Amino acid sequence: MSLIVQKFGGSSVEDAAGIKRVANRIVETRKAGHDVVVVVSAMGDTTDDLLELAHEIVDDPAPRELDMLLTAGERISMALLAMAIKDMDVEARSFTGSQAGMQTDAAHGSARIVDVNPKRIKDALDDGSVAIVAGFQGFNRNTGDITTLGRGGSDTTAVALAAALHADVCEIYTDVDGIYTSDPRIVHTAKKIDVISAEEMLELAAHGAKVLYIRAVEFARRYGVEIHVRSSFSHAEGTRILQNPYGDKVEEPIVAGLASDTSEAKVTVLGVPNVPGKAAEIFRLVASVKANLDMIVQNLSGEDDGRTDISFTLPKSEAKSVIDLLSANRGEIGHLGISHDDNIGKLSLVGSGMRSHAGVSATFFTALAEAGINVEMISTSEIRISIVTRADQLATALRAVHSAFELDSDVEAIVHAGTGR
Amino acid sequence: MSLIVQKFGGSSVEDAAGIKRVANRIVETRKAGHDVVVVVSAMGDTTDDLLELAHEIVDDPAPRELDMLLTAGERISMALLAMAIKDMDVEARSFTGSQAGMQTDAAHGSARIVDVNPKRIKDALDDGSVAIVAGFQGFNRNTGDITTLGRGGSDTTAVALAAALHADVCEIYTDVDGIYTSDPRIVHTAKKIDVISAEEMLELAAHGAKVLYIRAVEFARRYGVEIHVRSSFSHAEGTRILQNPYGDKVEEPIVAGLASDTSEAKVTVLGVPNVPGKAAEIFRLVASVKANLDMIVQNLSGEDDGRTDISFTLPKSEAKSVIDLLSANRGEIGHLGISHDDNIGKLSLVGSGMRSHAGVSATFFTALAEAGINVEMISTSEIRISIVTRADQLATALRAVHSAFELDSDVEAIVHAGTGR
Repeated sequence: MSLIVQKFGGSSVEDAAGIKRVANRIVETRKAGHDVVVVVSAMGDTTDDLLELAHEIVDDPAPRELDMLLTAGERISMALLAMAIKDMDVEARSFTGSQAGMQTDAAHGSARIVDVNPKRIKDALDDGSVAIVAGFQGFNRNTGDITTLGRGGSDTTAVALAAALHADVCEIYTDVDGIYTSDPRIVHTAKKIDVISAEEMLELAAHGAKVLYIRAVEFARRYGVEIHVRSSFSHAEGTRILQNPYGDKVEEPIVAGLASDTSEAKVTVLGVPNVPGKAAEIFRLVASVKANLDMIVQNLSGEDDGRTDISFTLPKSEAKSVIDLLSANRGEIGHLGISHDDNIGKLSLVGSGMRSHAGVSATFFTALAEAGINVEMISTSEIRISIVTRADQLATALRAVHSAFELDSDVEAIVHAGTGR
Repeated sequence: MSLIVQKFGGSSVEDAAGIKRVANRIVETRKAGHDVVVVVSAMGDTTDDLLELAHEIVDDPAPRELDMLLTAGERISMALLAMAIKDMDVEARSFTGSQAGMQTDAAHGSARIVDVNPKRIKDALDDGSVAIVAGFQGFNRNTGDITTLGRGGSDTTAVALAAALHADVCEIYTDVDGIYTSDPRIVHTAKKIDVISAEEMLELAAHGAKVLYIRAVEFARRYGVEIHVRSSFSHAEGTRILQNPYGDKVEEPIVAGLASDTSEAKVTVLGVPNVPGKAAEIFRLVASVKANLDMIVQNLSGEDDGRTDISFTLPKSEAKSVIDLLSANRGEIGHLGISHDDNIGKLSLVGSGMRSHAGVSATFFTALAEAGINVEMISTSEIRISIVTRADQLATALRAVHSAFELDSDVEAIVHAGTGR
């Protein structure tokens, strides 16, 4: 008998039929003799609908009240799910984030978990009950206020609960079969990955893989939680994310997979005076508006005129405020202009085998060159190489690299529509 | 400066426009220098929609989970209302039933308030903030579970909070101008009542007046809370419900008003053996299915055959289970048959002046007789006379009695559609 945490996203419980299907799945696991804790998101578009309602009333909703509002969504889905399970003659009890002991800091809208005291969850399990927990939400013990964890919050709730309960596995149910070597909607020969290290998964998630949120993976890595990403539409094994998946195998795979991302823009500050401290001045300014810079490249212009260009990528939605800020401070910075490019695509090759294998970069850049891909920016970590190219070249680039590292499958991947929160 | 509790029902906050209108009303009161605690119901049909969703999934939702589900409704309305108020530059904070310290017993779906510890509400008021509290909900301290108070729950929340906070007045906002001497949709000359005693209001509410729920009035009477029932669409004075409204006035009004009710059915147990203990046997049986009997009449049949008929009224929805039960126990009871009548109407004349004035009954029954009303059952209390007649004679009866006691107004009552929860 194991203790299993199962997380179901909003698309799995988007209507009455979805809730019954998920309830069936949970009951199967319980009847197989396991203790089951379920983390559930709000139904379908509930969160977006509530947000829209708030914006009908005020332009800028108060963060404390917005959290109070949005947490109504999970309250609805978890109560319905508990009813459905009880109707199948299996005991079930639903718990809000605060009832589940999910303590956070007071940062409404993007609170961070500071402690988990799942006493009531343990009591429910001891009573032989399935515990249904609201994802995405917690409470601040100092203020007594309800908080939300922000994007990917339900994944984080599930992993944090799994860690606190010392669960055997945290199953993240989604509408795809697992993690793929590349986005199967672009690379049709992408293969499902059976096992991957948490470290590799972190790099993939951070660079565009949408199936899992980076905070949840980070939590899993820190507390040694095994995650199993699998489909709620089938019983097939999905992808297991482990601390040390390859054990003492002689040949660990060189490359785990490819992530791609078209959600970023590139901003270039042109003709920045090439004097010490100038870059720091720019990045201090940018940090003041909390922009999330990703890749940064500084390149001298062709002629040595004492000026340089500094380029960086960041989420498209953050580009305008950064450009406005830099323009407003042009007098101090002394740059000549700013260019802004929304049509970039980023490709990242991830694999812990890169540490010990020579020649990865050579294979990578050769494949790109042979496919005629124009590389605009490069950044690397110990287990990752990322490049920026034109958005419309990204698919070609992905397929070329995928083939070059012999990741192609013989069968085409099955793709379902929609993604969970 | 006063402390005012204001309660707004679901029809007052049915959409974004309603929420803004209510927020305006609250801000006006706050800006006039009063401390304000607001109790709010779920928006419009939210509660019914959630109930329907539950019934799409299971036939018989688990009560604990149903309460968890339904309380999402107030969470939405109160958060939106707090946002709207803050947007008008007045501080506001929303609180769930448990955050507001609304402790109840564990009877899910119809919990009773056992204690109110509004510490966080007081803190919010001390900080100069408007406190918005979810109506209809509480929590059980032993189990930690969320409960709901059942029908009229938000009125009860408001009065209980007003009592615990020693508020100066509990304003119940509704879509009518106050309590009328009779239902203005039937008696077009009905007059708004300016003041009424809690005792009279209790009798009116118990016998069909829909504006206020009996539990809230009972709470107000017990703890001496002044209720002001008024319209959320105008600033006109409504009806004040006081402990002792007439003071030492020489002439208190004889009659406060008329209640009418067509929600009950009459069940007659025919030919019951006229032996001691038979009636007790029947009512013990009926009590076992928790039926809410109202009027009870026992009448000997014309010929003395050692048998009697026993009639009672009860909510229409409860008639079937009672009839089935009595039929199943016919062997023991020994009755000859059961008749069931859904087409009855009840009229109740209420007034504390009845205690000291002779001739009220004479005027009452004379008016009914002259109008040709067939009186089928009679019951009385110290300050009330109720009769049962045919449902289709009820309007005629109401108008006749209303005129006989000189309650008629010169102007026609204004009637708005819809009622709050």
